[in-house]
Amino acid sequence: MNKKLKFGLLVFPGITQLDMTGPLQVFAAVPGAEVHVLWKRIEPVSTDAIITLTPTMTLADCPQLDVICVPGGFGIDDLLGDDEVLDFLRRQAEGARFVTSVCTGALVLGAAGLLRGYRATTHWNALAALPMLGAEISHERVCIDRNRITGGGVTAGIDLGLTVVAELVGRSAAEAIQLWIEYNPAPPFQAGSPDTAPPELVASTRARLEERRKRRFERVADAAARMR
Amino acid sequence: MNKKLKFGLLVFPGITQLDMTGPLQVFAAVPGAEVHVLWKRIEPVSTDAIITLTPTMTLADCPQLDVICVPGGFGIDDLLGDDEVLDFLRRQAEGARFVTSVCTGALVLGAAGLLRGYRATTHWNALAALPMLGAEISHERVCIDRNRITGGGVTAGIDLGLTVVAELVGRSAAEAIQLWIEYNPAPPFQAGSPDTAPPELVASTRARLEERRKRRFERVADAAARMR
Repeated sequence: MNKKLKFGLLVFPGITQLDMTGPLQVFAAVPGAEVHVLWKRIEPVSTDAIITLTPTMTLADCPQLDVICVPGGFGIDDLLGDDEVLDFLRRQAEGARFVTSVCTGALVLGAAGLLRGYRATTHWNALAALPMLGAEISHERVCIDRNRITGGGVTAGIDLGLTVVAELVGRSAAEAIQLWIEYNPAPPFQAGSPDTAPPELVASTRARLEERRKRRFERVADAAARMR
Repeated sequence: MNKKLKFGLLVFPGITQLDMTGPLQVFAAVPGAEVHVLWKRIEPVSTDAIITLTPTMTLADCPQLDVICVPGGFGIDDLLGDDEVLDFLRRQAEGARFVTSVCTGALVLGAAGLLRGYRATTHWNALAALPMLGAEISHERVCIDRNRITGGGVTAGIDLGLTVVAELVGRSAAEAIQLWIEYNPAPPFQAGSPDTAPPELVASTRARLEERRKRRFERVADAAARMR
């Protein structure tokens, strides 16, 4: 490789920070990689988990990336109609090797028109929004369709990060990072998916998230209407 | 529960950010929890992965916590002889329900004398330092010995976070968070532990980390000498 690989991860107010910090740890461990944390302005953005995150580069100053990664979180609702962000993603997607997302970040890629005709995945509670944006639902943890790589909810960002590194740099580079971050997971319970969690827990979680889900799907419908 | 649970996570220059951001996402999802990100001063600290992290409370202002969590990273070397930090941890440990660590954060707990006579775990490349600090090595992903809960390297912080929530609040609270963060991991490779990674990768990784490991073990030896 005679040229630094460039990774960029979007941050925004209301991001689920682990959607971003998981793949960030993986990308930052790629030898010689250049990694940027991107937002409109260099100012701390709020997250859903106490901390703020401070971007390292603005969208306007960002060079062409090899990998663009869009994380999720409740704050994506506002990105679905944000032309500055959607235009940035479309521009980057033209030259990027991989266009990727974690969790509900996939809906932002979708709103930019970047998943039309692609198989993709997202958080289990948002899967039904994908066809509204022209994508076909995948239930995989990480879905690769040509140069679109999308991950499931939140923690899937670590699996996604390793997958992207394997595709871009090679399997042994990904394995070296996996060993260093000791990614040998051992969840204490089997509740990580609606398919394995206790059914009453899935039902109560769906009920708790229903209002937010409804509002989000309205925003997705608006985004879909603008795509036509 | 008639009183807010208080979680505190230490940050410091040279932290491995995912050691902290993993359990942070879990703790912040506990309904009604109060979560603090702690350092000596309210100023951004560098991490090993591009971003800075900004504490939300100083050690001096921190109330008695229910859970104190010490993440790892190369920056722990300086904490091993840092009396302000070690005294803070000793004071908190007196009243905390759980004294916890992720990755090489265990060595900081050890340097504070808080693992003497306990079983504990840490990053695979630092396990041998535990007995120097009076702890017995556990090879578990998350080790519970009385009120000390220690996790393995980096990504073990997610398993640790869920384990702590299960112990403190209950299994269904932990399962609800696991479902929301879709913690249903599917590592693309089996390289997450020295036991399963390709032997030549383990050897080259050990070689690459050897200089840093030597320097660290000298600091651990100094800390052990001060404990006597």
